[in-house]
Amino acid sequence: MSSATNFQTCSSVLITGASRGLGLQMVDSLASGGFSPGHIIAAARKPASAQKLQELAERHSNIHIIRLDVVSQESIEESVEEVAQLVQEEGLNCLINNAGIKVVADFNTVTAEKMIENFHTNAVAPLMITKAFLPLLKQAASRGGAGASKSMGIQRAAVINMTSLLGSVELNWGERADNFKWYPYRTSKSALNMVSRCMAVDLEPDGILCMAIHPGWVSTDMGGAEAPLSPEESVSSILSVIGGLTEKDHGSFLNYTGEVLPW
Amino acid sequence: MSSATNFQTCSSVLITGASRGLGLQMVDSLASGGFSPGHIIAAARKPASAQKLQELAERHSNIHIIRLDVVSQESIEESVEEVAQLVQEEGLNCLINNAGIKVVADFNTVTAEKMIENFHTNAVAPLMITKAFLPLLKQAASRGGAGASKSMGIQRAAVINMTSLLGSVELNWGERADNFKWYPYRTSKSALNMVSRCMAVDLEPDGILCMAIHPGWVSTDMGGAEAPLSPEESVSSILSVIGGLTEKDHGSFLNYTGEVLPW
Ligand SMILES: NC(=O)c1ccc[n+]([C@@H]2O[C@H](COP(=O)([O-])OP(=O)(O)OC[C@H]3O[C@@H](n4cnc5c(N)ncnc54)[C@H](OP(=O)(O)O)[C@@H]3O)[C@@H](O)[C@H]2O)c1
Ligand SMILES: NC(=O)c1ccc[n+]([C@@H]2O[C@H](COP(=O)([O-])OP(=O)(O)OC[C@H]3O[C@@H](n4cnc5c(N)ncnc54)[C@H](OP(=O)(O)O)[C@@H]3O)[C@@H](O)[C@H]2O)c1
Repeated sequence: MSSATNFQTCSSVLITGASRGLGLQMVDSLASGGFSPGHIIAAARKPASAQKLQELAERHSNIHIIRLDVVSQESIEESVEEVAQLVQEEGLNCLINNAGIKVVADFNTVTAEKMIENFHTNAVAPLMITKAFLPLLKQAASRGGAGASKSMGIQRAAVINMTSLLGSVELNWGERADNFKWYPYRTSKSALNMVSRCMAVDLEPDGILCMAIHPGWVSTDMGGAEAPLSPEESVSSILSVIGGLTEKDHGSFLNYTGEVLPW
Repeated sequence: MSSATNFQTCSSVLITGASRGLGLQMVDSLASGGFSPGHIIAAARKPASAQKLQELAERHSNIHIIRLDVVSQESIEESVEEVAQLVQEEGLNCLINNAGIKVVADFNTVTAEKMIENFHTNAVAPLMITKAFLPLLKQAASRGGAGASKSMGIQRAAVINMTSLLGSVELNWGERADNFKWYPYRTSKSALNMVSRCMAVDLEPDGILCMAIHPGWVSTDMGGAEAPLSPEESVSSILSVIGGLTEKDHGSFLNYTGEVLPW
């Protein structure tokens, strides 16, 4: 069974950072799945140079490429206009805040600028994007609500924040802490976890689900070649978790396997 | 018994944001305690306008006022020079990263600039200050280590980060989440908690204790008049907790009462 099967109830999904890595794989897996969403909106900051994404879009008519630089407010607002044209009165069912950077710096090499750069892309951008897409998410949530007004999930509206295990303060201890002493990256993901939790509180009255997911350690440009998971494996699992999200997962921090992770 | 009694083994303490609120109260309580540290270094970004601090320093010869704007790297480096002159080969026993701001903005009013401003002051500044003071902290830790080489605490060296309960992602749920929907502040304190934990990992080999403490809800300019705790009450409890810190508290997130808080 394709992991994208669960997406049969989801008409539209927007994925940021779709030029490569996990974002590109999510677009690919969703487009190739048995029940492909009507609109797979692949956002990339430089669409023209996203060669593989362009090729995918040529093969699947439901992939729409839009421009979105997540740290530019102007770009965010333009992307909302474009998406509104695409989805019309149906609104947006699923926003996946996937774009991210890993600024590598340890205690000795970290600077204020590095901390702020990573924080902006990984924690602030998902917040500003979610704010901007709120009207479209609300629209989808209110339509999906008919008949099952209390249920939450991607059949209505959901905001998925791609976080990291490295953002867990609890787990940053003992053996686990000996590697990956990346202050800017770790801090940005802890901050994203708080942003995700704050948004969950605020989006709940509109029936919009919000959660944070760790994709596993995956062999992308960011994860590196020694990572144990392939993008296909990670994304297959991620999409199956996202497809099955309900109220009980609202405000959660989940592993790509679906287990709850400690903050 | 004065809460500052525990500080009898601590020769020098530096407190940032000592112009008012909790910082000023810590200086006051430490100076008035039975066993007052030889050097109470009160850092303020505008010493000239810190009237109450000036008055305190006139009454207690062990209070030294220095200039420190925590978001300025230049100011941080200048302050290290000044402190090095003061403490000489004894080094610095206790650094209290207390300076902080509360940028109030909810989901509707939050902007990228507000998020970054609060993050810089509350999470990045304590990191940059700790980095800059590392040589002085190491010096104190190595001296305090003689005879009790394995023990940690303010008799050797400690970094105390003034965090907030509002930075707990876990507790930001249910009833507790209904108030204080301050995205920039909450996120900055979650980020500070990760910074504190990362630093604990890195400072451990030098025998420098590092932890984060929540002062309670205190009636300062930041806490507001309706806060249940007075600065005296909060600081009395905080100083007693700091004075009693040992290895087991390294890397922890404690309430002002000494209990462990969830990340
Ligand atoms: N791989 C792992 O092991 C792993 C583990 C934990 C969490 N994660 C998280 O999963 C997400 C995806 O990671 P990945 O492994 O796929 O990383 P990746 O291979 O480095 O790809 C990052 C993606 O984010 C995009 N991006 C970065 N800054 C952007 C901006 N300002 N505007 C728009 N797009 C931007 C990149 O676009 P360009 O092509 O234009 O640069 C690229 O598409 C990230 O949030 C990452 O932190 C990954
Ligand atoms: N009060 C509470 O209920 C409460 C609860 C939880 C946590 N806290 C935390 O406890 C700490 C102290 O809070 P408070 O209640 O005493 O706040 P406050 O009354 O607002 O005082 C804040 C202090 O921080 C200083 N400061 C701010 N930005 C600075 C900068 N760039 N450089 C140097 N100093 C700077 C201020 O100096 P100026 O006078 O120059 O502005 C002032 O001395 C903060 O970290 C706060 O987040 C307080």
